[in-house]
Amino acid sequence: MIEKYFHEKIQKVNAFLYEQIKQKDAPDQLKESMLYSVQAGGKRLRPILLLATMEAFGRDADQGLPVACAIEMVHTYSLIHDDLPAMDDDDLRRGKPTNHKVFGEAMAVLAGDALLTLSFEVVADIKDRNISGQMKADLVTRLARAAGAEGMVGGQSSDLRAEGQTLLPEELENIHLHKTGKLLSFPVEAGALLAGANAGQIEVLSQFSGHLGLAFQIRDDILDVEGDTQRMGKSAGSDINKQKSTYPQLLTMAGAKQKLSYHLLEAKRCLHQLDIQYERLDEITDYIVDRNR
Amino acid sequence: MIEKYFHEKIQKVNAFLYEQIKQKDAPDQLKESMLYSVQAGGKRLRPILLLATMEAFGRDADQGLPVACAIEMVHTYSLIHDDLPAMDDDDLRRGKPTNHKVFGEAMAVLAGDALLTLSFEVVADIKDRNISGQMKADLVTRLARAAGAEGMVGGQSSDLRAEGQTLLPEELENIHLHKTGKLLSFPVEAGALLAGANAGQIEVLSQFSGHLGLAFQIRDDILDVEGDTQRMGKSAGSDINKQKSTYPQLLTMAGAKQKLSYHLLEAKRCLHQLDIQYERLDEITDYIVDRNR
Repeated sequence: MIEKYFHEKIQKVNAFLYEQIKQKDAPDQLKESMLYSVQAGGKRLRPILLLATMEAFGRDADQGLPVACAIEMVHTYSLIHDDLPAMDDDDLRRGKPTNHKVFGEAMAVLAGDALLTLSFEVVADIKDRNISGQMKADLVTRLARAAGAEGMVGGQSSDLRAEGQTLLPEELENIHLHKTGKLLSFPVEAGALLAGANAGQIEVLSQFSGHLGLAFQIRDDILDVEGDTQRMGKSAGSDINKQKSTYPQLLTMAGAKQKLSYHLLEAKRCLHQLDIQYERLDEITDYIVDRNR
Repeated sequence: MIEKYFHEKIQKVNAFLYEQIKQKDAPDQLKESMLYSVQAGGKRLRPILLLATMEAFGRDADQGLPVACAIEMVHTYSLIHDDLPAMDDDDLRRGKPTNHKVFGEAMAVLAGDALLTLSFEVVADIKDRNISGQMKADLVTRLARAAGAEGMVGGQSSDLRAEGQTLLPEELENIHLHKTGKLLSFPVEAGALLAGANAGQIEVLSQFSGHLGLAFQIRDDILDVEGDTQRMGKSAGSDINKQKSTYPQLLTMAGAKQKLSYHLLEAKRCLHQLDIQYERLDEITDYIVDRNR
């Protein structure tokens, strides 16, 4: 069962993740603020994608825990900064008050900065003789590219510029490829790298995760219209209220659902080309498309 | 002449630094915002400390350029976030409007995030056969520790909590050791590492840079009282206006100057113990103490 699999992996990810912050010799309030957002739930989708990819190559997923947790730190930092009054100005995240509502704006900026910084430390400081120095350097480089100006932050800045404008579908897709796609592709690629996959396999997995990322985002947009506030832990309809372009708005709801199916099928087509144990990745893909929050 | 030395190094640092940002495949406005703050001047003290340390060991300083520029990116990001309305709320920095005054708060948050992220990429992605993968991983780890919760960001969060309070001199020192000290120590240690220094030499240089960092901060506090706004490019007396504790305030001006002399002497005592060509580092130390902005 995928629920049991998720549950087990979440336990491991959380234990490692919290420990990385707790063991820091840092001011208490900063650590509390970092932990608050990291402990606010979340599906741990990115870490689990990494661990499942390693297992698809027959590897022990525990070897991937540091990098898996690093991605979750980057994801969490991006939510903290995104929620700031100067950005999306959100009061609720995963059903709880956002970081700046609890700790103040200044501390929220710093907690985000500290989580981003820690993510790179966790990868670079891996103590595992099976992971070479050059592999750690490669993973840091890839994580930075996925998270930075050419990746997530670039997507956020395009998104910012696009507010209040009606985009072409390809412009919206380009924003999402960067804003959410790069950070969903990274764990799949990193897991494959750690598992010793060859360049051809990594390329196909990269296509897989590209489609997966778009499916994820289209599902998110559909949920924003069809979901209810309580189950999602954030306000339904919040994208529309912020005058952000969404797939249902640009393509109609039926068009958005069609596009979701397309990316789901393409993701699976890529996955099934590979001579690996892809069943878990398959289930995770279905989970992403069927989720209701 | 130290001015000529600074001038030459600044040229090299700037060329490399700007190129790292310009070559990114990222949205124009994000790159403009990153470049704006990176190009807003500054003494490039941290990069020059790294380059001069390498030369003190008889090494070619050019090998250190990527790490030198990475530190400057971290320094610049910290200034952008520090100046935000939620933090220090400063309108002027180095005589020019602060980043958020020009690009808006949201873009300033993102430009800071992107610079921090890029700093780790630049170190991890060094293409130099003389620098091993493990060395790159070590440098990323050290940069993250200097910049993150245990370093600069930790110091900023303590500083935040201390506003409006009267601190003990040792509390103020502890804030500065983290807030400014760690990012001044890192280039000296990184330069020594890159130059192949032994553990004993790194330890002494670390003591040197600790005293140098405190001397730097005390000089800053003295300038805040004695300097004039035009020369400094920021408002004189701004620390007092923000009810921040300063050395002159806690120790009297005479006491602060005495403490400055003490750390200057200790820094030089450490430096002169080493069997290296320390003349440039000596001059840089004098420059830091004598500077008037």
